[in-house]
Amino acid sequence: MFIQPRLYRGMRDILPEIMLPREELLQIVRETFRRWGFAPLATPAIEFKEILQGKYGEEAERLFYKLEHEKEDLALRYDLTVPLARAAAMYSNDLPTPFKRYQIQEVWRAERAQPRQGRFREFLQCDADIIGTDSLVADAEIIALSVGILRELGFPNAITKLNHRQLLRGLMEVAGFPANAEMDVCRIIDKMDKIGEAGVRKELIEAGFDDGKVDELFSVILSEDNGGALLAMVEDKWGHNNRISIGIKDLREFLALMERFGTPHDSLKIDLALSRGLDYYTGTIFESVVPEQPHIGSLTGGGRYDDLIGLFSKRDIPAVGITIGLDRILAALIDAEKIEGKKSPAKVLVTIFDENMVGKSIELARKLREQAIPTDIYLEPRKLGQQFAYADKLGVPFVAIMGENEVAKGVVSLKDMTSGDQREVAFGELVETLKSS
Amino acid sequence: MFIQPRLYRGMRDILPEIMLPREELLQIVRETFRRWGFAPLATPAIEFKEILQGKYGEEAERLFYKLEHEKEDLALRYDLTVPLARAAAMYSNDLPTPFKRYQIQEVWRAERAQPRQGRFREFLQCDADIIGTDSLVADAEIIALSVGILRELGFPNAITKLNHRQLLRGLMEVAGFPANAEMDVCRIIDKMDKIGEAGVRKELIEAGFDDGKVDELFSVILSEDNGGALLAMVEDKWGHNNRISIGIKDLREFLALMERFGTPHDSLKIDLALSRGLDYYTGTIFESVVPEQPHIGSLTGGGRYDDLIGLFSKRDIPAVGITIGLDRILAALIDAEKIEGKKSPAKVLVTIFDENMVGKSIELARKLREQAIPTDIYLEPRKLGQQFAYADKLGVPFVAIMGENEVAKGVVSLKDMTSGDQREVAFGELVETLKSS
Repeated sequence: MFIQPRLYRGMRDILPEIMLPREELLQIVRETFRRWGFAPLATPAIEFKEILQGKYGEEAERLFYKLEHEKEDLALRYDLTVPLARAAAMYSNDLPTPFKRYQIQEVWRAERAQPRQGRFREFLQCDADIIGTDSLVADAEIIALSVGILRELGFPNAITKLNHRQLLRGLMEVAGFPANAEMDVCRIIDKMDKIGEAGVRKELIEAGFDDGKVDELFSVILSEDNGGALLAMVEDKWGHNNRISIGIKDLREFLALMERFGTPHDSLKIDLALSRGLDYYTGTIFESVVPEQPHIGSLTGGGRYDDLIGLFSKRDIPAVGITIGLDRILAALIDAEKIEGKKSPAKVLVTIFDENMVGKSIELARKLREQAIPTDIYLEPRKLGQQFAYADKLGVPFVAIMGENEVAKGVVSLKDMTSGDQREVAFGELVETLKSS
Repeated sequence: MFIQPRLYRGMRDILPEIMLPREELLQIVRETFRRWGFAPLATPAIEFKEILQGKYGEEAERLFYKLEHEKEDLALRYDLTVPLARAAAMYSNDLPTPFKRYQIQEVWRAERAQPRQGRFREFLQCDADIIGTDSLVADAEIIALSVGILRELGFPNAITKLNHRQLLRGLMEVAGFPANAEMDVCRIIDKMDKIGEAGVRKELIEAGFDDGKVDELFSVILSEDNGGALLAMVEDKWGHNNRISIGIKDLREFLALMERFGTPHDSLKIDLALSRGLDYYTGTIFESVVPEQPHIGSLTGGGRYDDLIGLFSKRDIPAVGITIGLDRILAALIDAEKIEGKKSPAKVLVTIFDENMVGKSIELARKLREQAIPTDIYLEPRKLGQQFAYADKLGVPFVAIMGENEVAKGVVSLKDMTSGDQREVAFGELVETLKSS
């Protein structure tokens, strides 16, 4: 019997050379979330379809992997925000207010995969959300946290673009778009990075919007400016519009708070063309990009969504949150050739010289592991050349050899795989030597 | 619009008070795997059904959650061993030999859930496997690793039961069971812990097996003894049987190797009634239990499976591996009341005294976080009592208060939530005070 080994398209295996740095990134993200006082939550991959659909109906359903079982309408989660909203409503009596949670889990989307940009049908999301307060301090904390994480992950030049849904919708109002068209316009504008200004203009016109209105909107949202002057100009011209005035007030207060969080001014940018595709945002929205790697897309994204939890709870519960796109971040690091390519976590390989040395070699490996040195052991008494080749293939930096000679002298021969040098190290000094090199 | 928030049965949300210790356990498992030189691998949740079925056909299919998409026959993985075998075959030219990998991911089984024993339809498996060598050193390393992990996770008294499929099948041969019945007998014997000796006897007789044969088999496999004498007795009586002789030789060599790995003798036990339900095992099999908590079931389990990868590869590739059942382990710790019940990772909550102190409080939180102290901030200037209640509910041990008075004096008022004591700490000494308490 033979079964052809193959993967369903859009899925991938992550081999050790990618998993090793990925786990290091994850550890940084997890530790940072915890250092900021966020508590971990996990929800199941499988939810009832009606929960995942929320109020979006067919649009969300296009993204689902549906499951067959017990005649229930089930599907795999496509984000972590809707399951959080469901859980926040279910446990609202037990959870603290505010509830600050992080969640690091896979999501699945039945979309076209783009492997080069790190887009697969299964991917990991790292979310942090604050539920139960409409204080702008929460929005500021969420963004300061994400800027901090990007910095720790090796993206000191990342830019977080900021906008406000009320301001954006206010601008559509004053430009004369009908109220029921606002979400459609948002979704088309959201493609600005992908299809450019001309592409967005074309799609808006095709969707039936008036050339003049599009010009009016574009004249504002495409202005390049780092915030203050732009907001003053918009306020001066359309400050009478209630939504615009709320958005401007929030963004100004928000920028002042960011100073207190110590977020560098040049890592933030007001971008009135930022709209984000999802319906549920109601206030601040944000997205981080790396200017040197525009083809990677956004590394983080999020915003305030004050109406989503209410869907499951009969009362409104305000919330704000962010997603760190870890697989996208990993793709950016690979693209920038910042990934080492090691295939093993081991610092040293203990060889097995011959059949007689099996026991001694196991004892050596045991001693090194007890001293917290990541140690591999070859497991079989093969030719030393083959054991060296194994260490070389894995990128293990040191190899320890122990034959009868070494045992008699109370030493271990230690080969440095980078330089090729080999020297004898007294048994009692081996741990120290490995720790310090 | 209101959608009733609910969970599909057999699924669960894991709230912070459980997730916090769970993440700590996971970190120990991950670090131990790495210290032993195992490299991480991840495979997708969704695989082709024919891959997951392997050679088991309908039996495996009962466990599947099937997916609807693009008319492909897809399902969620129900273990991590079959996906590993598929990947090992796909990348056999690129992977090192031996390939030592660990994998920590969720699996899904459409079975009845038993929440009290920590059995859900979605659960986390932590696997370590060694592929490409039939050396018994590999079997010994895998078991020594799992004993070491259980010790680090707080189960110094765990017992790892050992058996050998060849020995077990040899015993069935000499007891007169027909060759094609051996796997059925294995599966029934595997229920010994659940339904007891009488239950197993009843099922074997119902399945058509002869009373006398069952007696013959039981007389051997139910003998209580710690290994050596039992093996000698079996060898003496049935050493002419080739399978029995191979099994005994392996187990003896194996026990000698375990001494070299430093695994305490009393944490291992030869148990000839151990059979494990899965078809694919071919040599050593093992399972860990905690004698004080028999109702929890096995915490780890595994064995040698030399024929599975061959299904996907046209040539046989030997392998041995273990699963650490993290959710079962967590259930055992909860059951033994060894879980703290904290709901936040934060060591200190920074309160916001009033509207004027928002900026100062944010700066204080920022300073503490920069010094690696897990810090939460309340986000809103509410009544102090409410902020204390929040810290209390979360189990945050310290609360820092900073009003105009404190700022003028260059201090922070620090409340110890356990003792209730409150005292002023100089701003410059706060980090040290929190780190040392």
